[in-house]
Amino acid sequence: MAAPPKPTRIGLAGLAVMGQNLALNIAEKGFPISVYNRTTSKVDETVERAKNEGNLPLYGFHDPESFVNSIQKPRVIIMLVKAGAPVDQTIKTLSVYLEKGDSIIDGGNEWYENTERRAKAMAELGLLYLGMGVSGGEEGARYGPSMMPGGSFEAYKYIEDILLKVSAQVPDSGPCVTYIGKGGSGNFVKMIHNGIEYGDMQLIAEAYDVLKSVGKLSNEELRSVFSEWNKGELLSFLIEITADIFGIKDDKGDGYLVDKVLDKTGMKGTGKWTVQQAAELSVAAPTIESSLDARFLSGLKEERVKAAKVFKSAGFGDILTAPEVDKAKLIDDVRQALYASKICSYAQGMNLIRAKSIEQGWDLKLGELARIWKGGCIIRAVFLDRIKQAYDRNADLANLLVDPEFSKEIIERQSAWRRVVCLAINSGISTPGMSASLAYFDSYRRERLPANLVQAQRDYFGAHTYERTDVEGAFHTEWFKIAKQSKI
Amino acid sequence: MAAPPKPTRIGLAGLAVMGQNLALNIAEKGFPISVYNRTTSKVDETVERAKNEGNLPLYGFHDPESFVNSIQKPRVIIMLVKAGAPVDQTIKTLSVYLEKGDSIIDGGNEWYENTERRAKAMAELGLLYLGMGVSGGEEGARYGPSMMPGGSFEAYKYIEDILLKVSAQVPDSGPCVTYIGKGGSGNFVKMIHNGIEYGDMQLIAEAYDVLKSVGKLSNEELRSVFSEWNKGELLSFLIEITADIFGIKDDKGDGYLVDKVLDKTGMKGTGKWTVQQAAELSVAAPTIESSLDARFLSGLKEERVKAAKVFKSAGFGDILTAPEVDKAKLIDDVRQALYASKICSYAQGMNLIRAKSIEQGWDLKLGELARIWKGGCIIRAVFLDRIKQAYDRNADLANLLVDPEFSKEIIERQSAWRRVVCLAINSGISTPGMSASLAYFDSYRRERLPANLVQAQRDYFGAHTYERTDVEGAFHTEWFKIAKQSKI
Repeated sequence: MAAPPKPTRIGLAGLAVMGQNLALNIAEKGFPISVYNRTTSKVDETVERAKNEGNLPLYGFHDPESFVNSIQKPRVIIMLVKAGAPVDQTIKTLSVYLEKGDSIIDGGNEWYENTERRAKAMAELGLLYLGMGVSGGEEGARYGPSMMPGGSFEAYKYIEDILLKVSAQVPDSGPCVTYIGKGGSGNFVKMIHNGIEYGDMQLIAEAYDVLKSVGKLSNEELRSVFSEWNKGELLSFLIEITADIFGIKDDKGDGYLVDKVLDKTGMKGTGKWTVQQAAELSVAAPTIESSLDARFLSGLKEERVKAAKVFKSAGFGDILTAPEVDKAKLIDDVRQALYASKICSYAQGMNLIRAKSIEQGWDLKLGELARIWKGGCIIRAVFLDRIKQAYDRNADLANLLVDPEFSKEIIERQSAWRRVVCLAINSGISTPGMSASLAYFDSYRRERLPANLVQAQRDYFGAHTYERTDVEGAFHTEWFKIAKQSKI
Repeated sequence: MAAPPKPTRIGLAGLAVMGQNLALNIAEKGFPISVYNRTTSKVDETVERAKNEGNLPLYGFHDPESFVNSIQKPRVIIMLVKAGAPVDQTIKTLSVYLEKGDSIIDGGNEWYENTERRAKAMAELGLLYLGMGVSGGEEGARYGPSMMPGGSFEAYKYIEDILLKVSAQVPDSGPCVTYIGKGGSGNFVKMIHNGIEYGDMQLIAEAYDVLKSVGKLSNEELRSVFSEWNKGELLSFLIEITADIFGIKDDKGDGYLVDKVLDKTGMKGTGKWTVQQAAELSVAAPTIESSLDARFLSGLKEERVKAAKVFKSAGFGDILTAPEVDKAKLIDDVRQALYASKICSYAQGMNLIRAKSIEQGWDLKLGELARIWKGGCIIRAVFLDRIKQAYDRNADLANLLVDPEFSKEIIERQSAWRRVVCLAINSGISTPGMSASLAYFDSYRRERLPANLVQAQRDYFGAHTYERTDVEGAFHTEWFKIAKQSKI
């Protein structure tokens, strides 16, 4: 393979499709790059692609030593390998040849505490470390992802010029990258991004379900509805690809491919972590939780088939008698329900980030995060500009729901939202995400919740004490004794 | 203080109210007991109580050495101290004086992995270890709790005779204790018990909310409704104390105490762990999750007051126009909704236990767990006998929902259940637990979920592949390319 005429600007290790594409993207932006992979055929493949995609300044290496030595000092190397042990292994392989002041950047979906552990170990060797969430899938990596680098600010500064150019560019908004914050904040923010993505996908699936199962829309009609939605407030990557999906015919038989896809959803961990962190941080995230649960339940396909039989044999159908509906009205209602639910889901995600930021002292800027998600990533949408504006109006906004614009939008949509959820309930189909979002909204906007009863119960059986609405302090009542006396 | 005439049968360290009560319970059943506490006044207090409550054979010690030496060999000591560091501290204090073959039992709400770590450390010293969940609050500890001992079977055997006598006794069902299984299984089962308890309390709070906010029932009417419910299928400790609560007048002013209790619910960790474990085990537990979220949202009292103002100023009241309702019909509907939701919540809890049992090889017996929860503990209810019967009919039951009896009960109640949730939604109050339960039911009994769309999306943007309904294998489609071509 051709050696670089002079030291390259940056290195990238880990050449699965994401890694290849990001390397090609960097090279295409004019930054000579060295690449390395343990399985050397991937190196050759990448070099070949660089040649074919425009003689890009990309240089392949079969051994880690010459790979590291080919990069200009202080060296910066991005890793794109599987989270967990492969990251540790790659660090071990590379760090032997690195020198003080060099930087390693993990571009995978890593658990933020692993990044913090590694950053500490690297610091002892005089090396800098970044955990950088990268969203946008394979296409994003190649043509402009959203990037969330967190950790050493010094390391970030070394490659800021590169990141600003390779990330997605949004007109009037700038490149979809910013220095997130210290420690594992880049990974954490990417994790929440993925949790929000779970929520979005679930809500879209529920909209699809209501329109198909109750509204009896055909795939062609669904394609046209989602295309239409993609011109308005719901304009987003996920709505766009959903429209595309409904239009694709099955290449193995009759009909549309989406109907042949098995209703089992896989997952890779970030949604799970989001839900666990929500519990840890005492932040309610019911929409995101419902999306994770929906994936778990989708996985129980065989159990569901059996359960359906049990209830059908009792004359209790999959779909209960669905009322006659006005299609146009239903479509419009579902659009509104989807949008209102989406506001709740993002409110949860943003509040998760804020809670963690406070816990860790990361000082994260929520509006700036919304900005860098406007392009490149899976949840990219015009909607994110509205969120950015909400935090521009008030950086300390307690919840997106009480932003003047969002509260207005929700009030306008709440009747349709309630209609859709009740229609689904009465039809016997579930909209767990939409109903969890609605319950979240109705709980959050409620001055007085029935939590007084729960606290009274806790004081009754566990002497946990309670506060009062009228007097300061912690009180305990001998409920049992008083009740017993009154019964005599 | 009086020394025991001969070595005592057992020791107990940690004399907060739970510890005092359990020690008195053990002594009352005829087992001479030594007690110890770091703060010695608690020792004297317990000795005094033992004297006053019938000259019970209880002996107090101010120093750990004479405490340990007063117990017959092989010694067994129950600890009832706060989970976490205090447990480690107590073990450290006591183990100095213990000998090979002695046993320590942690009776607190400990994280199961901490128990496993300690059991391992104890084993190296030749000591046996049990993690034993104890439920029933202070009253239960004194007069008969439900006990969930897990860990060393040998240690369990040393005190089986004591546990069988001090635990709650349920006619035709036996003592509310059984050897749970190896490792930290006793703590884990107690943790899920508490998660289920969270769910029960939330569902009751929602029933209260609908009856009060929509049905306009007074506290006196609520007391009478819950008393009535406590005679039927809902008969349980929590329903009973709820009826009691509604009957208690405020001693600081006019009206009823429950209306003066602040709507902020506290929590102590086991609900959080349950939700985190559900995510870890890939088990959907939406009812339990919603109860944890409801506690989190209850805690945001100040934010809620502000949010209520925002929406009220837009003419959007706390309760939307509630329709005229037939009170008797509403009460009956709510009872049915509560019962059906409860089935879903327990289905989730039992499946969490099974998933963990499989993961850890604990071989837990779900029916036996339902049996020992029939008395003594906070979730005690006639309902648990139905669960026991379901597992007696089929130990491998995939889900309580498909048990012939439960599926019949749900079918009978599903119309009322849907009515209540929709009524709440249209009134603008939230029933997160009931609607999550209903969505769980409607998802689980559904042969085909819209998860096919989510999986198609994942394959579109991340090449995660999908399965098909008609052909075996993992497939990938170039959705983007095909969609692009068809657009040209």
